[in-house]
Amino acid sequence: MSKLWGGRFTKRPEQWIDEFGASIEFDKQLVEEDIEGSLAHVKMLAKCNILSQEEAGEIQAGLTTLLDKAKKKELSFSAQYEDIHLNIEKLLIDEIGPVGGKLHTGRSRNDQVATDMHLYLKKHVQTITGLIKELQNVLIVKAEKHVETVFPGYTHLQRAQPVSFAHHLLAYFWMLQRDVERFEESLKRIDLSPLGAGALAGTTFPIDREYTAELLGFSGIYENSMDAVSDRDFILEFLSNSSMLMMHLSRFCEELIIWSSQEFQFIEMDDTYATGSSIMPQKKNPDMAELIRGKTGRVYGELFGLLTVLKGTPLAYNKDLQEDKEGMFDTVTTVEGSLTIFAGMIETMTVKEQRMSQATKQDFSNATELADYLAAKGMPFRQAHEVVGKLVLTCIQKGIYLMDLSLEEYQEMSSLFQQDIYEVLDPYNAVSRRDSAGGTGFKQVKKAIQKAKDCVQQPIFV
Amino acid sequence: MSKLWGGRFTKRPEQWIDEFGASIEFDKQLVEEDIEGSLAHVKMLAKCNILSQEEAGEIQAGLTTLLDKAKKKELSFSAQYEDIHLNIEKLLIDEIGPVGGKLHTGRSRNDQVATDMHLYLKKHVQTITGLIKELQNVLIVKAEKHVETVFPGYTHLQRAQPVSFAHHLLAYFWMLQRDVERFEESLKRIDLSPLGAGALAGTTFPIDREYTAELLGFSGIYENSMDAVSDRDFILEFLSNSSMLMMHLSRFCEELIIWSSQEFQFIEMDDTYATGSSIMPQKKNPDMAELIRGKTGRVYGELFGLLTVLKGTPLAYNKDLQEDKEGMFDTVTTVEGSLTIFAGMIETMTVKEQRMSQATKQDFSNATELADYLAAKGMPFRQAHEVVGKLVLTCIQKGIYLMDLSLEEYQEMSSLFQQDIYEVLDPYNAVSRRDSAGGTGFKQVKKAIQKAKDCVQQPIFV
Amino acid sequence: MSKLWGGRFTKRPEQWIDEFGASIEFDKQLVEEDIEGSLAHVKMLAKCNILSQEEAGEIQAGLTTLLDKAKKKELSFSAQYEDIHLNIEKLLIDEIGPVGGKLHTGRSRNDQVATDMHLYLKKHVQTITGLIKELQNVLIVKAEKHVETVFPGYTHLQRAQPVSFAHHLLAYFWMLQRDVERFEESLKRIDLSPLGAGALAGTTFPIDREYTAELLGFSGIYENSMDAVSDRDFILEFLSNSSMLMMHLSRFCEELIIWSSQEFQFIEMDDTYATGSSIMPQKKNPDMAELIRGKTGRVYGELFGLLTVLKGTPLAYNKDLQEDKEGMFDTVTTVEGSLTIFAGMIETMTVKEQRMSQATKQDFSNATELADYLAAKGMPFRQAHEVVGKLVLTCIQKGIYLMDLSLEEYQEMSSLFQQDIYEVLDPYNAVSRRDSAGGTGFKQVKKAIQKAKDCVQQPIFV
Amino acid sequence: MSKLWGGRFTKRPEQWIDEFGASIEFDKQLVEEDIEGSLAHVKMLAKCNILSQEEAGEIQAGLTTLLDKAKKKELSFSAQYEDIHLNIEKLLIDEIGPVGGKLHTGRSRNDQVATDMHLYLKKHVQTITGLIKELQNVLIVKAEKHVETVFPGYTHLQRAQPVSFAHHLLAYFWMLQRDVERFEESLKRIDLSPLGAGALAGTTFPIDREYTAELLGFSGIYENSMDAVSDRDFILEFLSNSSMLMMHLSRFCEELIIWSSQEFQFIEMDDTYATGSSIMPQKKNPDMAELIRGKTGRVYGELFGLLTVLKGTPLAYNKDLQEDKEGMFDTVTTVEGSLTIFAGMIETMTVKEQRMSQATKQDFSNATELADYLAAKGMPFRQAHEVVGKLVLTCIQKGIYLMDLSLEEYQEMSSLFQQDIYEVLDPYNAVSRRDSAGGTGFKQVKKAIQKAKDCVQQPIFV
Repeated sequence: MSKLWGGRFTKRPEQWIDEFGASIEFDKQLVEEDIEGSLAHVKMLAKCNILSQEEAGEIQAGLTTLLDKAKKKELSFSAQYEDIHLNIEKLLIDEIGPVGGKLHTGRSRNDQVATDMHLYLKKHVQTITGLIKELQNVLIVKAEKHVETVFPGYTHLQRAQPVSFAHHLLAYFWMLQRDVERFEESLKRIDLSPLGAGALAGTTFPIDREYTAELLGFSGIYENSMDAVSDRDFILEFLSNSSMLMMHLSRFCEELIIWSSQEFQFIEMDDTYATGSSIMPQKKNPDMAELIRGKTGRVYGELFGLLTVLKGTPLAYNKDLQEDKEGMFDTVTTVEGSLTIFAGMIETMTVKEQRMSQATKQDFSNATELADYLAAKGMPFRQAHEVVGKLVLTCIQKGIYLMDLSLEEYQEMSSLFQQDIYEVLDPYNAVSRRDSAGGTGFKQVKKAIQKAKDCVQQPIFV
Repeated sequence: MSKLWGGRFTKRPEQWIDEFGASIEFDKQLVEEDIEGSLAHVKMLAKCNILSQEEAGEIQAGLTTLLDKAKKKELSFSAQYEDIHLNIEKLLIDEIGPVGGKLHTGRSRNDQVATDMHLYLKKHVQTITGLIKELQNVLIVKAEKHVETVFPGYTHLQRAQPVSFAHHLLAYFWMLQRDVERFEESLKRIDLSPLGAGALAGTTFPIDREYTAELLGFSGIYENSMDAVSDRDFILEFLSNSSMLMMHLSRFCEELIIWSSQEFQFIEMDDTYATGSSIMPQKKNPDMAELIRGKTGRVYGELFGLLTVLKGTPLAYNKDLQEDKEGMFDTVTTVEGSLTIFAGMIETMTVKEQRMSQATKQDFSNATELADYLAAKGMPFRQAHEVVGKLVLTCIQKGIYLMDLSLEEYQEMSSLFQQDIYEVLDPYNAVSRRDSAGGTGFKQVKKAIQKAKDCVQQPIFV
Repeated sequence: MSKLWGGRFTKRPEQWIDEFGASIEFDKQLVEEDIEGSLAHVKMLAKCNILSQEEAGEIQAGLTTLLDKAKKKELSFSAQYEDIHLNIEKLLIDEIGPVGGKLHTGRSRNDQVATDMHLYLKKHVQTITGLIKELQNVLIVKAEKHVETVFPGYTHLQRAQPVSFAHHLLAYFWMLQRDVERFEESLKRIDLSPLGAGALAGTTFPIDREYTAELLGFSGIYENSMDAVSDRDFILEFLSNSSMLMMHLSRFCEELIIWSSQEFQFIEMDDTYATGSSIMPQKKNPDMAELIRGKTGRVYGELFGLLTVLKGTPLAYNKDLQEDKEGMFDTVTTVEGSLTIFAGMIETMTVKEQRMSQATKQDFSNATELADYLAAKGMPFRQAHEVVGKLVLTCIQKGIYLMDLSLEEYQEMSSLFQQDIYEVLDPYNAVSRRDSAGGTGFKQVKKAIQKAKDCVQQPIFV
Repeated sequence: MSKLWGGRFTKRPEQWIDEFGASIEFDKQLVEEDIEGSLAHVKMLAKCNILSQEEAGEIQAGLTTLLDKAKKKELSFSAQYEDIHLNIEKLLIDEIGPVGGKLHTGRSRNDQVATDMHLYLKKHVQTITGLIKELQNVLIVKAEKHVETVFPGYTHLQRAQPVSFAHHLLAYFWMLQRDVERFEESLKRIDLSPLGAGALAGTTFPIDREYTAELLGFSGIYENSMDAVSDRDFILEFLSNSSMLMMHLSRFCEELIIWSSQEFQFIEMDDTYATGSSIMPQKKNPDMAELIRGKTGRVYGELFGLLTVLKGTPLAYNKDLQEDKEGMFDTVTTVEGSLTIFAGMIETMTVKEQRMSQATKQDFSNATELADYLAAKGMPFRQAHEVVGKLVLTCIQKGIYLMDLSLEEYQEMSSLFQQDIYEVLDPYNAVSRRDSAGGTGFKQVKKAIQKAKDCVQQPIFV
């Protein structure tokens, strides 16, 4: 059978080239969006008297039949018809005869495919935003349990200052909150209809673009037809926002993996999220955390792939743009899966509170307390820092901790030290006293949990 | 001299390692932001009675002196003091004595450097948004002159349908408008103060973070101290938004370069934006357009550099994060420079209207008119498409254009063709008749120019 | 049914997590390599008396049955058994009973999967190298036809100096030759056996790694077991070499697309490699060239994805590494497809020699001839360059070419000009006279074709 | 003053555009290579009688003067002359008068800059290869000390099987060996002379390219002039090889950082390679390891930057290519610095052997020994794996290790267990018995050290 656009050609393309060039293998994922777009288009054509009510009715009936079959996975597609659009048109003509050929009036595949992708991505960005909120909720619940769980805070993977474990978890809450914001802001640009932009220039038919936009639930239309068909910013934004989200998850994964090590033992993954080894019977690997950390690379790669595709392509549509889809589909799958797994992983993990708090007692992470103590008594901070540095060195040489030094030893270094330093050195007190706004003090953490709850309950716009 | 944090160490770091690890060579660009941040910090310490008014006064005087010198480029820095923060502290102590050591009370370099970068980026994102708007204005002015300049619209770099040259230019206006939106939205996250987050956990001093935020002109504070010091999303967003902007410019550059070729000759660059050859005396190369297209790679690279740095790093601060700055500085320079050059390049280029409109008369880009003509008379579009395909083939074989076929020849293919087709085939009419919303019809283009003007006049928020 | 490694676990993993973590959906592509690897492994176990001949015989028979079924696509796999290795082991045990469980003696999935990928990639790198050579042959054939086809050479997409079209084509030959070299060099590191490295540490069984390496056709073994199971350099090299190859093709595509434009018309794609438009009946789009240019982004993205995955992962195996496969498979498909299409596209394209040579007569690309002429007569090149620059300007102002200036006009500028300049200005002569080594002079081009033939006939090593 | 190529232009470029377009700020790093290239060129021009001996002598004298000044940093450059080539030419003409203008005979900046970069990169790739070998030597020395240091081998950051610490270190030796191989192989393509390719087409002057290649120490010449001036593969290869090297270092850094944590305490960095905190007096951060891990992102970014620049650029030279330099220079600095630091960091770090070997006694990393034990006695490995899995579970529930189970308890699970299992379970024995080729058994490790020594002593080719 001849190609639908083949009138001008004298030769038959060979099948294997068809397959290399065809997109049906992946753009069939857009089948429902494609038919929905066509239903809106034909309804508009009738409203604008471009098609008769009768013609439109026939086409709508045919499309509805196809949509039902699509939902039941009963449609079958062929690389011979290149893409989802021509496949659907072929199936429609098979279903209702030549009048099906009138569907493409005042429309091009260029605006059609852009419409499909906008519909698809709008739906999935909303799903993803919902999944992030679920993960945020899991963090809030976990944080509420661990407000007073004292935990070693790290910088440079060295123990720095003791913190509330809830405070540590909430750091991720706020990263995710920025992710929610970015995804929501991107909807402003996803939620626009390119339909009616034609091949690149608009159309001579008296179409009504606002009407199709409304039927499809879009909040507006693209202002410029050439931009409408060649813009892929909305996908780039999605990939960029997804990259940042995955980066956040990768940081969390890194911590979960380190905390699961025999040396740290701060948490234990639920068996559901861990796997064993084919050779070492004792192994319990935090596989899901590693896998999600690894999948960060995949999403970064997809962002970079599309940035490369778009660089230096002239207006308007070029075939290069066909490369926009697989990365988008794969990122949707990756991000939705990662978020779902993550929520379950955090929810079910065992937090070993005793290991955590014990850890804070056997290190020098309370050294800042001493420096602040001296500074509060009027010693310039720089000098206080140096005094405490020497005390730490003394301890290391003796194999003891700061708690173990006698008051006399302290006072040899500075007469500002008094008996109350032992209370100051206690990790629980150290955490408690960091009561500055956004700090790890327990009061602050409780406030933060309340703010987090308020945040997560706000509805997603659009 | 000993390092400011060297109390605990027994050995002297060798100088060359200092240089590898030091950031002063590049973070000295933050000198003004760093001093401004310190001025706000010390003012707050006095307000909260953490320092006496007298101490604070001395420190403020010293900092003010340093700020003046900084503006006059009179400060000199040393890799021995690692970074801008310790360099300034050293200079301050040199200036006012040991009381300078009290400046660092209730603060860490971790929150300090984050504050500096937020201040820096806020300023430059506003500059960049302003520069984009200038470029948008240049496009509007150019578009107003060329509403009725008929130009071949391309897809696949093949002539597709004639369009208004203004319409083509405005496609870039809307891309840039999305850039403005994204940069503005990112300000929401840039315009937050991390100051007071301390090393990672907040501080035991009764500081007032809202007060320093207000003094520095920030619209809010980070909610979580660990997030505040380890977050670099705001830089990633900047690099991602810059990448998309550069991608847009690269597409435009590609077109300018192609249009400048001897074969196209649609525009001529002003001499100011072109260069010659050291060997070929006749050359006039569109160098600036090529260079900006090339610089797209640089900005993409910087985005990917930072994404890589952040992947899998545990909380909170790690030295890896020092790699966040050079890419940011370089991107600011690249983007600000590219936008400035671009505006001048577009403003001064010569548009060869005659070459453009002549081009539209010697091709088949009016073929869609015929297909629409038949479709409007009731032939299914698919069939119309095939009929016109055959007419085009006939013309090619005869070496003529569609205008040159006789009415008889038309009517042999379909009796729907009438005398009025010759009018329909005229490129000017073809453009004019694409009057759908956002289409290239002249009326639509005029409306679009008005919308663009309204858009560009809206003030930037924050 | 219980997981094969599930002895230590108390809970049943839920199915959906299985699917997220399972690799069988993509690593089933390694089924033949996996069975071949097992066949070699079991043969070695028998030779080393780790298994009895009888046990080995049973296992080999079972594996051979599975291999036959695999080739006939008769095996079916399940996400329940995670990956290709456990799926095959399960099918083997189903086939021959518990003795199948002895296959995994002295082996881990870690060395097994690495072995599969080395086998897979070795095969495909050889295929790819062969396909590059085919494309090189096509270029040679095309170049032979066009040695004396005079063509405008470009820099900055501005006409620079006339060249032989064969010379232009051969520039790509040498790029591809570097690609061949790099792929061949990478084989040195692909063609090594990790089998026998165990989970990470080798094994206590008296295995013979050289023997399995030999059976599998590898030229050597990994020297360190921890490196053997965690190394993915060989895939990175493949992705990097593929990126450079695609970059070369993208440059060629860009030229083919530009040359196919109505404005250039230097070539015409065969219909097989072009497509039409769903809306514009006259369109003939160089789709394959655009698509391959676009696919460059995909391959870059896959390189960047894997670089990201590997960054900062500790030794030895981590689950992150599972992300190494899909990018590799996809790049193999992309590169093999692109090369195949490319060879056909170049072979069948029509070269419009007349358009090319005519183009060289209507421009200033012969200006360098004049400057060289003056320099050869003793005028410093810089001065000659300036003299000719002024002559070009005169011509542009008069709307003529250099050929059209009278001898008097020439001599007004410099008395060094003589009658022979008109011969020097002829594009054919200009090309001919560039007889420096590697230059575009016809004699040089003929020599280059001979060298290219010698190159392409050299066998691929390994 | 007029630009050297400005004869054709009517307007003066404004200064700020000059600065955006100029490369002198960074390509001045090529000053010595540039003058050396010119010295070879002028010597050849004289040999080929294109310049007189006298002219050549004057130019050579002038260039030699400039080279001396360059080495003493006495030359000053200006953005007005764009790049290093025109700056040197200007300084030469200032030095020796108009005859300096003859230097550019038969040459273009396009082949000149390519020559400079080939010279530069050849030198630095040799330096880098040498630095890798130094690091390899440090690893060998460290490994020799720790052949019998028993260390927990990890997969998934979970203890897997005990290994020799030397074996772990040597895994990096082999990664670095592949880096050496790749850098050396790349020299084949770096070590070629583009000089004499002219602007793109070769030259009409009877030059001798082999002669200049020989004078500059190149082992061959580019075969095609268009390829010679537009090829940047050699830089891409350098960036790709550098990215893989940095990836290796990043993995090592990750381990060093984890091993330096309070929880692991397997090593201690020498003070020289660690830094303190401005606020926390106890901190000793493994800064250099973190910084190098972070710098991986920078090098990846530079690779992707250049890949992007080159994608889709037509032949031959385009201004985009100017973006090839800064990434190359920066990568050279980064890689040379990182390697130097790394060697010192490894050499001086304290290995806490006791902590390491003690660790292997308090875990289940000897579980594979038991499974192998059973498999060696004829139980299918899969079944053995399951038996041991249950034993591990029993231990965990009882809070003991495998060593602590009684023989009776073992025999309840399988009658194959005998008294000798306690010897088998000892970590030292476990390591010792992994005597397969490339395994961690002490004998194998000693052999591996010998092989490593042989490897590192082989001279670098070229």
